[in-house]
Amino acid sequence: MDISSYLEDYGKKAKKASYLMACAGGEKKNEALAKAAELLKERAGSIIAENEKDLKNAIENGIRPQMIDRLRLTEKRIDDMATGIHQLVGLKDPVGEVIGGGRRPNGLEIIKKRVPLGVLGIIFEARPNVTCDAAGLCVKSGNACILRGGKEAILSNLAIAKVFREALALSGLPEDAVQLIDNTDREIANGMMKLDNYIDVLIPRGGAGLIKNVLINATVPVIRTGTGNCHVFVDESADQDMAVNIIINAKTQRPSVCNAEESLLVHKNIAGEFLPKIAKELISRNVELRVCERTAEILKKAGIEQFVPATEEDWATEYDDLILAVRVVDSCDEAIDHINRYGTMHSEAIITESYENGKRFTEQVDAACVYINASTRFTDGFEFGLGAEIGISNQKLHARGPMGLEELTTVKYIINGEGQIRK
Amino acid sequence: MDISSYLEDYGKKAKKASYLMACAGGEKKNEALAKAAELLKERAGSIIAENEKDLKNAIENGIRPQMIDRLRLTEKRIDDMATGIHQLVGLKDPVGEVIGGGRRPNGLEIIKKRVPLGVLGIIFEARPNVTCDAAGLCVKSGNACILRGGKEAILSNLAIAKVFREALALSGLPEDAVQLIDNTDREIANGMMKLDNYIDVLIPRGGAGLIKNVLINATVPVIRTGTGNCHVFVDESADQDMAVNIIINAKTQRPSVCNAEESLLVHKNIAGEFLPKIAKELISRNVELRVCERTAEILKKAGIEQFVPATEEDWATEYDDLILAVRVVDSCDEAIDHINRYGTMHSEAIITESYENGKRFTEQVDAACVYINASTRFTDGFEFGLGAEIGISNQKLHARGPMGLEELTTVKYIINGEGQIRK
Repeated sequence: MDISSYLEDYGKKAKKASYLMACAGGEKKNEALAKAAELLKERAGSIIAENEKDLKNAIENGIRPQMIDRLRLTEKRIDDMATGIHQLVGLKDPVGEVIGGGRRPNGLEIIKKRVPLGVLGIIFEARPNVTCDAAGLCVKSGNACILRGGKEAILSNLAIAKVFREALALSGLPEDAVQLIDNTDREIANGMMKLDNYIDVLIPRGGAGLIKNVLINATVPVIRTGTGNCHVFVDESADQDMAVNIIINAKTQRPSVCNAEESLLVHKNIAGEFLPKIAKELISRNVELRVCERTAEILKKAGIEQFVPATEEDWATEYDDLILAVRVVDSCDEAIDHINRYGTMHSEAIITESYENGKRFTEQVDAACVYINASTRFTDGFEFGLGAEIGISNQKLHARGPMGLEELTTVKYIINGEGQIRK
Repeated sequence: MDISSYLEDYGKKAKKASYLMACAGGEKKNEALAKAAELLKERAGSIIAENEKDLKNAIENGIRPQMIDRLRLTEKRIDDMATGIHQLVGLKDPVGEVIGGGRRPNGLEIIKKRVPLGVLGIIFEARPNVTCDAAGLCVKSGNACILRGGKEAILSNLAIAKVFREALALSGLPEDAVQLIDNTDREIANGMMKLDNYIDVLIPRGGAGLIKNVLINATVPVIRTGTGNCHVFVDESADQDMAVNIIINAKTQRPSVCNAEESLLVHKNIAGEFLPKIAKELISRNVELRVCERTAEILKKAGIEQFVPATEEDWATEYDDLILAVRVVDSCDEAIDHINRYGTMHSEAIITESYENGKRFTEQVDAACVYINASTRFTDGFEFGLGAEIGISNQKLHARGPMGLEELTTVKYIINGEGQIRK
């Protein structure tokens, strides 16, 4: 099989569709979304039938039980997907907004406006709901997309993509605005990363392995998403009850996600009092503590023995699990240094009653989202009021933090002249 | 030599400096810039002496005469550099601007603000003025930079970087906010492209070969700059005198730059009248015409023989020289298709008196800057009123078109809470 001509075919169709989508008005795009939501519900039975084939194959191939849950579609989940798509209808169309410009001294009128990115490549793992989310966001933002999901979910993904393609066609929009690659070979994903001539932006959605592979191989511009080694720092002036609440929430409410807490830093002046308190709470919730020497001493003195010593590696690890690294620091500055050294520029929190330390922490910590007295778990497009989310960027280019519809646009300058030439 | 520890040393110093620069107020940054401008003038003699050594080496190594001119520094050029740096003082500091946010229903206060990108890597060729421009823009925007210039200009670059480092130190700012790599091996540049842990954004400034090398090798996020295969389309309703003026300007005013015209498209309904007119004007200005068959026929009929037939390759070539590809098209739509197929998404112009075609062209042409009735040569940070320019992006991610100070920033979310946890 000739991979490059196989992919070029997808690329050409997507490019062509992207030009039509860029000019489509909000009404038509909303019509397609409403239609897709309707069809998702109508077809729930046949989508679930395809999903069951995927599940059967996956189980035969020895997939991990954790993955099974992500892969499984139910009537309820399809209903939720349809509701999500329907909510996009009510959001403001980001395309066409004039965000700058003016008349230059020579009379040239410059208009800076938002336009769709063009063709988005989205590579993801075995979660069929991503097909639905990504397709919906692309349609709303006037982009075309080439989706490449994990092989375990291929039949489910194709069934969902088909719904969007039909909805687009029924609304007079190009069905190729949503394409799902039907070949799940790794070579195809690698080829997609180099499809410069057709893909404008690549968004990998998945674990650290996928992201790393994309960074090494892609020549297409990439938005990195996902990795979150998030910290909570309890300053000496912290309201300790508030700190306990926030840490329990940040660590245990949903430990598998990127905005969950992975490390706890505690100011030395309150460590003796605070650490035994929080340790008991966490241990009672089955959290494994990996602690620095000073923490170990304090806990031992308080008669707490359920912890393991932390290694250098622990400070840099995103567990995505009920494990927490714990370290005593001498000052707010040491906390900032630790975070800037080991963090992944995602979400970081300080619990403090000090104006000065709050200000310093938010200014000097180098992360997308920096919190004072709140849980890191709020880093999310819906919680931030964006109305939608395609992922959370932890790079600095283009988008940082939760990405909504606006982040799926770029700008274009329109310049209206009357014959001006440059002198 | 151990390249990775050599580069890590630059990276660590830059990262550390970047945190201090991010918190530096506009006054201090302006003080450093004013000081640098002053020192540039004071040291003009010794900078020129270093530049003469570079020139001598370059000539001995058989550098092309065209390159010599770019490499040479004169009293006047250093004066211009100092003036450029001084102009930055008067520009608005982009850092700290609050560009969004608000109170969420749960009471969380979200503040979205501009912050510096952090550490910029800039790889460029043998133009010492880029050292000065890049260093000045980085200081103003609160970034640290690692500069890697062409080997031919190494002594000039070091002398200029030294001026900035001294100016920073004299103003109480970290001198490592401006570092120039003193080793010009290609291996070092390639290593820089993979310095993910320390460089936030890489901006290559140079020819197509450099840009391509960066795209293939970089794992650091990149902003592509520079390549411009720009078109002027003369519609059937065009004011033909205006079209002649604009084409002469776009093609001949400075043919070596990225916003110069490379291809001319002419509507078939006026081709018989317009092509002989424009051809005579261009030929008299020593422009070589590479033409389609229909153009050739029209020119021959008009007794014009100074042209060569265009090949497929010509439509996709950025000549950066006094050469113009010329093609007759059947319609505005064909012109749009041609541009979207062969263009580089940089600057494209239509000359028309038709409202409909102007609208369609600006909407459907996929480029950073789309002009109606003006020369493509205006795509430039100064002409657009940005007050500065680090390059012209022709990618869609982060920045598109001329990049000024704002494009050297990213965003950061600060979230002020009162103990909120996620439900």
